[in-house]
Amino acid sequence: MKQTRINSLFGIKHAIVQAGMVWTSGWKLAAAASENGCLGLIGAGSMKPDLLSEHISKLRNYFLEKKLNFPFGVNIPLIRGDISELIKTILKEEVKIVFSSAGNPKAFANVFKENNITWVHVVASVKHALKAQDAGCDAVVAEGFEAGGHNGIDEITTLCLVPQVADALEIPVIAAGGIATGAQIAACMAIGAEGVQIGTRFAATVEASGNDAFKNKIVEAKDNDTILIMKKLNPVRLFKNKFAEEVINAERSGAGEELLKEMLGRKREMKGIFEGDLDEGELEMGQSSGLIKSIKSVKETIADLIVEYNSAVIRL
Amino acid sequence: MKQTRINSLFGIKHAIVQAGMVWTSGWKLAAAASENGCLGLIGAGSMKPDLLSEHISKLRNYFLEKKLNFPFGVNIPLIRGDISELIKTILKEEVKIVFSSAGNPKAFANVFKENNITWVHVVASVKHALKAQDAGCDAVVAEGFEAGGHNGIDEITTLCLVPQVADALEIPVIAAGGIATGAQIAACMAIGAEGVQIGTRFAATVEASGNDAFKNKIVEAKDNDTILIMKKLNPVRLFKNKFAEEVINAERSGAGEELLKEMLGRKREMKGIFEGDLDEGELEMGQSSGLIKSIKSVKETIADLIVEYNSAVIRL
Repeated sequence: MKQTRINSLFGIKHAIVQAGMVWTSGWKLAAAASENGCLGLIGAGSMKPDLLSEHISKLRNYFLEKKLNFPFGVNIPLIRGDISELIKTILKEEVKIVFSSAGNPKAFANVFKENNITWVHVVASVKHALKAQDAGCDAVVAEGFEAGGHNGIDEITTLCLVPQVADALEIPVIAAGGIATGAQIAACMAIGAEGVQIGTRFAATVEASGNDAFKNKIVEAKDNDTILIMKKLNPVRLFKNKFAEEVINAERSGAGEELLKEMLGRKREMKGIFEGDLDEGELEMGQSSGLIKSIKSVKETIADLIVEYNSAVIRL
Repeated sequence: MKQTRINSLFGIKHAIVQAGMVWTSGWKLAAAASENGCLGLIGAGSMKPDLLSEHISKLRNYFLEKKLNFPFGVNIPLIRGDISELIKTILKEEVKIVFSSAGNPKAFANVFKENNITWVHVVASVKHALKAQDAGCDAVVAEGFEAGGHNGIDEITTLCLVPQVADALEIPVIAAGGIATGAQIAACMAIGAEGVQIGTRFAATVEASGNDAFKNKIVEAKDNDTILIMKKLNPVRLFKNKFAEEVINAERSGAGEELLKEMLGRKREMKGIFEGDLDEGELEMGQSSGLIKSIKSVKETIADLIVEYNSAVIRL
């Protein structure tokens, strides 16, 4: 694969980031992604500070035992109530790469900078990309409407977002949203990305910590099986299961924030992704799920991506 | 640019189709696109049969006078009340290339086949793409969520739709939705498209028949200035002006079909695109409008696209 500023920023062979997703990106997935030349991220969004510490330690011990030394990072949602505790954990564990999302990056810029942390923020519009650059980020993830899980309110697709963000910024842009194949990586590089972040395809690997029922649902999903709902609260893309259909109907009838909050209740993501409740859980996945045909190891998945990328480049 | 089955299907130099849009794709735009190596389409969606005849004659006369012989086509929405009259016009005028959209392609397959018309249908999901292929289409346009104007209900983005349709079909796939630059053409080719259809960028050319105020609005639009509304009727992407904001608010409060129909009223598209009423009209444009920086001639636009395409391919 083409070498870019993203390779040198993180010290990785392939400019591919494994997204730090809730309930499915534990230390095993991150270690496997990093070990195979990409940047692995532990998804702290579904972890209390203690559990995050444990995952970081396990990943480090695994690398120590195998005498490996690869970079890895942690993804943290800045809107978490206990964000300062999470950040304390990151400093204590001396994490060197942080991806932040869902919140105002400026509030935490100093702490990242003072601790020499390589810092990337996830954005979904040019305006927020510029804010992230101004706040001092080393790169941004420009994530499109097709991405699984929590998403921006502007509904800008990866194909339209990436070139506009790349055009507006000096720092490198990592494309995300809807990317599950090497051909799509090539497509994103063509429109100005210097790397990609891939979520759903890594959620459907052996090493991901999601429930097998959830992984099988990713493989089963067709092109039109996901939808972005909860736009009045915090937009989220998921598989259109029973729970999602109920929310869609409520939204079509004009349901307000209160009712939606009540319908959402608590721990829907855990129920869906981790416990595999296919009817009542939130089955967060991207539109790229329609492109994912089987559950493989991370090593095989990355090898496939590279072969697919090279074939696409040759086709052009 | 790379040569594909789309070049030979239509006999064109560049595998680029100028979309047949309402109120903005008259004979001048189509002639200019065809004359400069692409496939120009007259948009019959906003024309009565007589006016369509007139546009076809004018285009033919222009080519005759300039001793040119280039292919061109007509786009027809199959849900039009007077569709049989439109099709009679197409047969009478011996149009050789038809792009159909918005309706069941099977109902009209025989007439296209019997008259040796090269026939392309616009689809927004794998299911509808397979139906179009089964009906006998020579190619499909796979049009993503980011496209301007009328759109599918599944909200599948170009980046996710194109590879899945290309994978499922034997016939060639033309990518559409959000494409305004040559780099994006390269991206679409990388994910399996054999050509592209471009709308909004051609709507912002000198030869397009839309109002200057509408063209300027395309140039002005930022990444997040369009939205897909009217999902309970017939989804349409447009600039978020006063009219659109009113519909958005009504939809959030649960407005049903009846109220939406009333709000839409009649001739909103004409008002917006042709008459340039920036507050009350429907300003149909794609998310790609954020990428369009100036109004140029079709010739300059196509030359730019080719340069941009080649730079993107070299970057990979």
